[in-house]
Amino acid sequence: MNRQQLFEQIKKKKSYLCVGLDTDIEKIPQHLLKTADPVYEFNKQIIDATKEFCIAYKPNIAFYESRGAVGWESLRKTLEYIPKECFTIADAKRGDIGNTSSLYAKAFFKTLNFDSITVAPYMGEDSVKPFFEYEDKWVILLIHTSNKGSEDFQLLQTREGKFLYEEVLFASQFWATPDQMMYVVGATHEEKMGSIRMLAPNHFFLVPGVGVQGGDLEAISKVGMSEQCGLIVNSARSIIYASSKEDFAQEARKEALKLQTQMDKLLSEYCR
Amino acid sequence: MNRQQLFEQIKKKKSYLCVGLDTDIEKIPQHLLKTADPVYEFNKQIIDATKEFCIAYKPNIAFYESRGAVGWESLRKTLEYIPKECFTIADAKRGDIGNTSSLYAKAFFKTLNFDSITVAPYMGEDSVKPFFEYEDKWVILLIHTSNKGSEDFQLLQTREGKFLYEEVLFASQFWATPDQMMYVVGATHEEKMGSIRMLAPNHFFLVPGVGVQGGDLEAISKVGMSEQCGLIVNSARSIIYASSKEDFAQEARKEALKLQTQMDKLLSEYCR
Repeated sequence: MNRQQLFEQIKKKKSYLCVGLDTDIEKIPQHLLKTADPVYEFNKQIIDATKEFCIAYKPNIAFYESRGAVGWESLRKTLEYIPKECFTIADAKRGDIGNTSSLYAKAFFKTLNFDSITVAPYMGEDSVKPFFEYEDKWVILLIHTSNKGSEDFQLLQTREGKFLYEEVLFASQFWATPDQMMYVVGATHEEKMGSIRMLAPNHFFLVPGVGVQGGDLEAISKVGMSEQCGLIVNSARSIIYASSKEDFAQEARKEALKLQTQMDKLLSEYCR
Repeated sequence: MNRQQLFEQIKKKKSYLCVGLDTDIEKIPQHLLKTADPVYEFNKQIIDATKEFCIAYKPNIAFYESRGAVGWESLRKTLEYIPKECFTIADAKRGDIGNTSSLYAKAFFKTLNFDSITVAPYMGEDSVKPFFEYEDKWVILLIHTSNKGSEDFQLLQTREGKFLYEEVLFASQFWATPDQMMYVVGATHEEKMGSIRMLAPNHFFLVPGVGVQGGDLEAISKVGMSEQCGLIVNSARSIIYASSKEDFAQEARKEALKLQTQMDKLLSEYCR
């Protein structure tokens, strides 16, 4: 999917919501456990219930990988089930030496056919470049993550007086265009979102950390939105685990609708 | 496996060689392709041929993941086949927010029963900590990697006049002891290996980059060895692809023996 198609989806659905498919077999409703593939069954129902209100799905790969080959099958089937107009994000946080990153690119872009993958920047340009070799596929580079540990290194100041995450932002803009790369910017860094937007006016940001992690949707939209919206805001636990009973899909739908309604308003206010 | 057991292995085998099982189905000998699981068959023969001369095996997960569920099965069977006295390293370079890192820990330490996993530091302490919850399992943290891109961010200088990789080395020593954590230090940074050893006198270093990538075994052993050897030197391509014909296992054995012979000499010279 290219940038224009993504923006069209956002306008059509009046939403920049991404549903995080962080599906933990220990947390899904009991009655699903008797189905052949409970994780896939759960995802299917969540997708059916939310696809009207979201523009993207983001399975975090750890949830599937922790179940071995069975988990990979659930993931593969889930990917096939996601409607083609939705943007798909492999939240994998990969990154390795060149020939190895090429294989990760193959795993997620070819074997599983994701639109995008999250990548960690620590190993530098040659660890990221192989992901750019696929047309209309995206790297979503970690810049300033939503967790507490994001303060440990990302906020180190360099001799030039910049934060490490700013150095990553500067350097990486020489690696690819805003048509191939997005950035992860945590919703918990509301106070930095505006300056990050100034440094990368045309990039999409994937924004985790709204909901359970405490980020404020309105605040980050106000400072983070670009002319093409430029935000994909992820919510996982507060949607997919809205209920632990048989009504989990209806409750997920209500939560997604609630966020989409807010987003509709925020889009008309800040994206003009 | 704990540190003492690892050192015992090193003394017994007079080797600190790790064989990288970066098994690419497109590179393995043709005649194996008619077996039920060619990647596993290849690994089995490589393990049989080299186990006398190495103390560790390191499958890079990308090679398995790029083949989906089938690849995970090859990996699982390979892990079961590796002799118990050999140290196993999941070269996965994972790292995510806390609840997700817990699942990666489960994937590699429980589902697959690896002894250790490589972890990227960009997301900070809480992304690494969940891996420490398993007894006698190890985090191998990326410090200064062997690739060209290691210069992009790892060599940024902070306001305190330190390199980023030194900051990671300092900070991470408060997270865990040398009984739970090792560091990745590329063999291509021979000139920095000595100072890194001074900053972390008791840690084991996993050293990739000898062989195809150009690192010099003698030079890094001279400056990097500690009282307990403290080095696990990885070689992948130059061993496992020593021949592309039916004699691949014998040729791999010869390459491994050549390195072990060098290591025997270097151990008696520098590890006293």
